[in-house]
Amino acid sequence: MKQSVSSKAQSTVLENPLDNLTTILKYDLTAVNGLILQRMQSEVPLIPQLAGHLIAAGGKRIRPLLTLASSSLFDYQGTRQHKLAACVEFIHTATLLHDDVVDDSSQRRGRSSANALFGNEAAVLVGDFLFSRSFQLMVEDGSLDVLRILSHASAVIAEGEVLQLSIANDLATTGEQYFKVIRSKTAALFAAACEVGAVVAGRSPAECQAMHDYGLYLGIAFQISDDVLDYVAAEKRLGKSLGDDFKEGKMTLPVIHACTKANAGEKAFWQRCMADLQQQDGDFLEALSILKRHNALEHSLGEARKYCALGIKSLAELPDHPLRQYLQDLIVFAVERDY
Amino acid sequence: MKQSVSSKAQSTVLENPLDNLTTILKYDLTAVNGLILQRMQSEVPLIPQLAGHLIAAGGKRIRPLLTLASSSLFDYQGTRQHKLAACVEFIHTATLLHDDVVDDSSQRRGRSSANALFGNEAAVLVGDFLFSRSFQLMVEDGSLDVLRILSHASAVIAEGEVLQLSIANDLATTGEQYFKVIRSKTAALFAAACEVGAVVAGRSPAECQAMHDYGLYLGIAFQISDDVLDYVAAEKRLGKSLGDDFKEGKMTLPVIHACTKANAGEKAFWQRCMADLQQQDGDFLEALSILKRHNALEHSLGEARKYCALGIKSLAELPDHPLRQYLQDLIVFAVERDY
Repeated sequence: MKQSVSSKAQSTVLENPLDNLTTILKYDLTAVNGLILQRMQSEVPLIPQLAGHLIAAGGKRIRPLLTLASSSLFDYQGTRQHKLAACVEFIHTATLLHDDVVDDSSQRRGRSSANALFGNEAAVLVGDFLFSRSFQLMVEDGSLDVLRILSHASAVIAEGEVLQLSIANDLATTGEQYFKVIRSKTAALFAAACEVGAVVAGRSPAECQAMHDYGLYLGIAFQISDDVLDYVAAEKRLGKSLGDDFKEGKMTLPVIHACTKANAGEKAFWQRCMADLQQQDGDFLEALSILKRHNALEHSLGEARKYCALGIKSLAELPDHPLRQYLQDLIVFAVERDY
Repeated sequence: MKQSVSSKAQSTVLENPLDNLTTILKYDLTAVNGLILQRMQSEVPLIPQLAGHLIAAGGKRIRPLLTLASSSLFDYQGTRQHKLAACVEFIHTATLLHDDVVDDSSQRRGRSSANALFGNEAAVLVGDFLFSRSFQLMVEDGSLDVLRILSHASAVIAEGEVLQLSIANDLATTGEQYFKVIRSKTAALFAAACEVGAVVAGRSPAECQAMHDYGLYLGIAFQISDDVLDYVAAEKRLGKSLGDDFKEGKMTLPVIHACTKANAGEKAFWQRCMADLQQQDGDFLEALSILKRHNALEHSLGEARKYCALGIKSLAELPDHPLRQYLQDLIVFAVERDY
């Protein structure tokens, strides 16, 4: 495990445990992809066109993989997890479509975003369709426990998104608010995706809770790391566009940390760049230099590593199974990856 | 019952059967309003602020009233209908919020629209929250039948909205497409609101279907009438702003009918106004004159009256109960109102 951001740049490329999970769960994932394709259909052609644009672009399918891994870890022998993994991906896709409208994004998964191609209106409405379709799939599955978990997660995601919007470009954003946002908008669906895998396998409340907790900690660790990578990823690879959060003035953990340590000049810099969005050439490099001066990226990764440790602790409460190690590798990777 | 659009202007003001329903179901409606207020709360203040802006503006609460009237008509003695009526209103409110973003509306219920006051982003996300919250309430109620009905209605609404968007400003829009849109975007929720009232009362599939059908026909009749009133309401009262559909180039039934009868000059007029949206002063009056020349408003109301008759036929399959007459008055009013 790397110890610092700078060592990150020199480290050998980490094997991506998602690839391993994808290989092991290949048969299940193919079934899920088939269901996704089948159930996003509609007599109204614009719906599969628009949804297909985003879904075909791929994405890592990390949330459905979590549902599949969770049910497999408990040696569940049925097929209910396929439909529920598709539900989880539909909810995720719906939130992506609405996010892109909210952020007025032009790019998603390396392609033009759906709103840029089809218009904000269509992106909002197709998001609504996928969201409704997701609940129809859950009703077909017929478990009120699953419906409770996923409807709760959906409400929490929306709350997190609204909170994020409320505190956008606000230099006074606290670490507490940041954690509330990422716990809601990102980690809640990771947690639910994991938990429903345990629920379909009919496991004990304690085991369902442990799977939920693992997903929650994975989501938090993953999001902090994502927010750090928005400042440093491109030092290593070009898979992610750099500085998007900075351009939008998004108050992520590194900046929040640096703001608490800022001198008067730095405060004025953050005020101009993040709150007033009056950015000039060279500001991103200056931001990076301030973040490094205050050890803000390292501090943030330290926080992510705490959640990584909590996630590994949650896994320890689950049955000893090869997939448990893969899930452990995944949460370590979520923090230590450089892309 | 009035026989023509022109006689509409001279007729005495019809008593609004919604007022009667509101009076009879006052106790239940108070409970529903309490639940709506309670369950739209969130730790994130922007959510109740924005939702409250729209919900406090009132609206007719026609959909929750349908759920209440339906369960009462079957002499249901419990209280489950309150929560489900709140669900129906949350779904409706979520679609209004998203509609206003889609239409880029600045007004709703005589006040500034939520998107105009709080921004499109917040309107999208608070809509998502209300939608999720609605499913949480259904899960609390615990009926998979209710969940099936309302998740299906939600998906159909979204499909209808996307279809409407797909054929916007398209002069070739057919009556068939128009009916598909209004059946989906408007009537599906009326139908579901009615049906869940029968479902909680534990009625037979035939009675649940008859309530569903009544709601569907009511919704269709109501929407056609609404689309006619967009051209003629202000001849009588000022409760509704006139010509919004025309300004947006919305292909509603009167225009679709007039287009099928149009001569070359009229075709060019509709092309310029509805498809190219190149409107000038006086165009609305010219449109009205063309619609009247082809009897298009009367033709549309004739279609609405067919659905009114179908709705009354569906009611005949339900128990003889004072509320049945009020529901009959309501569907007649939906067509014959002048505002």
